[in-house]
Amino acid sequence: MKTDTMNTLAPIEAYLDFSSPYGYLASEWIEDLAAQHGRSVNWHAVLLGVVFQSAELRPLMSYPIKSVYSVLDFERSARFDGTPFKMPERFPISTHNAARVFWWLKERDAAEAARWLHHGLRAYFVEGIDIGDTAQLRDLATRFGLDADEAEAAWSDPHWKARLKQANDDAVAAGVFGAPYFIIDGEPFWGNDRRLQIERRLSQGPF
Amino acid sequence: MKTDTMNTLAPIEAYLDFSSPYGYLASEWIEDLAAQHGRSVNWHAVLLGVVFQSAELRPLMSYPIKSVYSVLDFERSARFDGTPFKMPERFPISTHNAARVFWWLKERDAAEAARWLHHGLRAYFVEGIDIGDTAQLRDLATRFGLDADEAEAAWSDPHWKARLKQANDDAVAAGVFGAPYFIIDGEPFWGNDRRLQIERRLSQGPF
Repeated sequence: MKTDTMNTLAPIEAYLDFSSPYGYLASEWIEDLAAQHGRSVNWHAVLLGVVFQSAELRPLMSYPIKSVYSVLDFERSARFDGTPFKMPERFPISTHNAARVFWWLKERDAAEAARWLHHGLRAYFVEGIDIGDTAQLRDLATRFGLDADEAEAAWSDPHWKARLKQANDDAVAAGVFGAPYFIIDGEPFWGNDRRLQIERRLSQGPF
Repeated sequence: MKTDTMNTLAPIEAYLDFSSPYGYLASEWIEDLAAQHGRSVNWHAVLLGVVFQSAELRPLMSYPIKSVYSVLDFERSARFDGTPFKMPERFPISTHNAARVFWWLKERDAAEAARWLHHGLRAYFVEGIDIGDTAQLRDLATRFGLDADEAEAAWSDPHWKARLKQANDDAVAAGVFGAPYFIIDGEPFWGNDRRLQIERRLSQGPF
């Protein structure tokens, strides 16, 4: 019966931008937590800049006082979580190419797309690789086992540009206004700091 | 030696607006937590509207999509904390009079001012009393054991208006950009959701 029950549970819908520090931190624990409760994670790579416009928000780093605190909080939250983190020199960056590769991979294999997501997030937030730079993104694709020319062809392809645009529109329609943004059976949870509430939601249902 | 050690620990500096739901939630646990670690809490009642202007932020409820989520999150966070909470019909409200009474009381007795803070927050966020309304605030002062005329004289007095203005300026100078905002030995923590990090900070020191 356990297996049957597990099969009926919807995946956790998970939205982030490759340039979101809190998204990266949450990406390091959400899959294990989901699996403990018989769920998978359905990733959505989106562009926060687009989402912010719809929600009339501005990027975190554009706020003069809040941004100073935020960098301190990114680093402290990473230490609190026990997750490797090094504040990138260039932040935030444009992540449309990394996101288009994600959607290109996802069409053929969602698990491979999830691995690319982790690969890209760790490259940016641990190794300091600027995944907004096309040369560095090509190198990253190669290290991942992709053909760099094929990856670049994908992120330059109007089809995958349109796919990412659709993903942004879908996120806005789903109410997403930041990252990480999780939806569990229709209930939204925003932020790496909603971890304990998500744990309770998964183990007890709505509370 | 325990007592000596406790005496050397600085209070936790705590900033909030009487109209902050997350400030209210945190006000229900920070004093006990501080006391467990030999600290007191030094409260600062401020006006978030003023603080937001300095930080180029807007009130939470002014954001069309984020505000919908926020109300859901206020209520869920209260349930998660096990803290009574009822979303006020009018929100946010202007809390300058409640804050001026706080500073008036604090000059003569910090503990009484802290009790007023809890009294006002619970009135607004549990009983639905509109503490931005002068008639209701007078009633609340009476229930607290104050003379209502004396309380109103205080919140109308240029001296206590200036004191609140000074408190707002001090908060901005201290880097405050939201509520609740805690400073522990110079280290800032923003939000009810930084509770676990504050616990670790108090028990282990900087991490």
